[in-house]
Amino acid sequence: MRIETDGTMVTDTIDGALAARRLAWRGAALEDGSRSVAEELPLVLSFNRISHAVMLGSPIDLEDFAVGFSLADGVIERAEQILSFEAVRLGDPVRGIELRMTLSPDRLDALDGRRRFIAGPSGCGLCGLDSLEAALRPVRQVAPGPIHAASTIAAAVGSLREAQALNRQTRAVHAAGFWRDADGLVLLREDVGRHNALDKLHGGLARRGIAAASGIVVMTSRVSVELVQKAATMGAPVLAAISAPTSLAIATAQEAGITLVAIARDDGFEIFTHPDRIAA
Amino acid sequence: MRIETDGTMVTDTIDGALAARRLAWRGAALEDGSRSVAEELPLVLSFNRISHAVMLGSPIDLEDFAVGFSLADGVIERAEQILSFEAVRLGDPVRGIELRMTLSPDRLDALDGRRRFIAGPSGCGLCGLDSLEAALRPVRQVAPGPIHAASTIAAAVGSLREAQALNRQTRAVHAAGFWRDADGLVLLREDVGRHNALDKLHGGLARRGIAAASGIVVMTSRVSVELVQKAATMGAPVLAAISAPTSLAIATAQEAGITLVAIARDDGFEIFTHPDRIAA
Repeated sequence: MRIETDGTMVTDTIDGALAARRLAWRGAALEDGSRSVAEELPLVLSFNRISHAVMLGSPIDLEDFAVGFSLADGVIERAEQILSFEAVRLGDPVRGIELRMTLSPDRLDALDGRRRFIAGPSGCGLCGLDSLEAALRPVRQVAPGPIHAASTIAAAVGSLREAQALNRQTRAVHAAGFWRDADGLVLLREDVGRHNALDKLHGGLARRGIAAASGIVVMTSRVSVELVQKAATMGAPVLAAISAPTSLAIATAQEAGITLVAIARDDGFEIFTHPDRIAA
Repeated sequence: MRIETDGTMVTDTIDGALAARRLAWRGAALEDGSRSVAEELPLVLSFNRISHAVMLGSPIDLEDFAVGFSLADGVIERAEQILSFEAVRLGDPVRGIELRMTLSPDRLDALDGRRRFIAGPSGCGLCGLDSLEAALRPVRQVAPGPIHAASTIAAAVGSLREAQALNRQTRAVHAAGFWRDADGLVLLREDVGRHNALDKLHGGLARRGIAAASGIVVMTSRVSVELVQKAATMGAPVLAAISAPTSLAIATAQEAGITLVAIARDDGFEIFTHPDRIAA
């Protein structure tokens, strides 16, 4: 990375962090210096060279993100349905990254059908009751999965910190991790957006053939309804988060059969739905 | 609010918080009890009975949100262009709220033109370079505005805490506040989403005829590029946040002429762009 004399940053490595010049005030004077900040770039997801969506996110673990987003969005059902992947920088200096995917023919047919369905005359591509239905779409039921000791939750949450490499550098990104009692922390992914972090974890697990049903998904964030919807799509029976859930996240976890653990910290945790998977 | 015996919640007041039953683990046993959680509902924004967008958010200060979202999205240029507003509950029990607005005829024409423009064959309604351009759209230049003493930043940030009524109850919502040196904290709005909180502040100021150019916008969150884009649309010369900015937020603040202050806490703050509005 380089910092120009006018304070602008130039990206020449894609590793999720950049140095930014800033003046720091500590009560007496403004002191010149720099801080490591989280890189954020538009990520353009395309299938067979046609744009599908643009998400702002951290430009790391991009293939995991592309696969996870495609799974969460219902474009594919298995990682193998993406036949090829390439990350292409757009612009010089880079202004975004295209995540260029080739879809298997059967999924391309399904996508074409869906596109015709959702192309509409309004800003969100959805109208009337459809809008609400889309926001509150029925969730998939998760499998029973293993039972975990209460002490496992603290261990799973505690395992994240050491693995959050980008957050250690920037103090500004979220993480999604996957824990199995037999293996500890199996995989961790980071992003400036918590939803992206979970998509990356989803894609990373799918590409490695690891079933989310076998363990616990752990998040460093609050729990919104979208995170629960994504966990349900992954088939994750337990979602544990460091911070609090919203009312709709709780209702959706209840509906999906997910054990929702939140406010999980060193001194304990709280279970909001389906507590039968946690043994005291 | 009511809690059913099976743990489900019933919304019968719209005040942004609900009691949720949960089991708490503090190292020894799972104890039954309840916690106040942030209410999250789909908010369907409609113009002249046609759906425009669906956002998940806190169902409080809804008219401010409707006006602020419409301003930020470019549907209107002044609050008065929304001729009428009504919040209509959808479903019983409530599954969402329609924010039903009547647009002035000239803005309705403009919206119709925009709709035709953005309706496209892909999931996001945008294609190829257009997608990237939409994510990185040029930002409005802000006015010079007043100069603030460095000590003002701590006072502005410190003023939020006491006014965050919903966060005090739930510990799970963000706030956007507006501070003027002569008046202190003028207005504060809360939401489960930080972008919604800023939209609510925007609408609240516009409806009261308060120019954002006259003070400081203060956020309790990290700073993503969308928050800077919204601040530029508001014409806010100074954006101060408790947590860190992303690289793209910094670059966009630089472009818009915004003074971006972040990591603003009791022990100091950092200025990332246009420091000339802060006097040491």
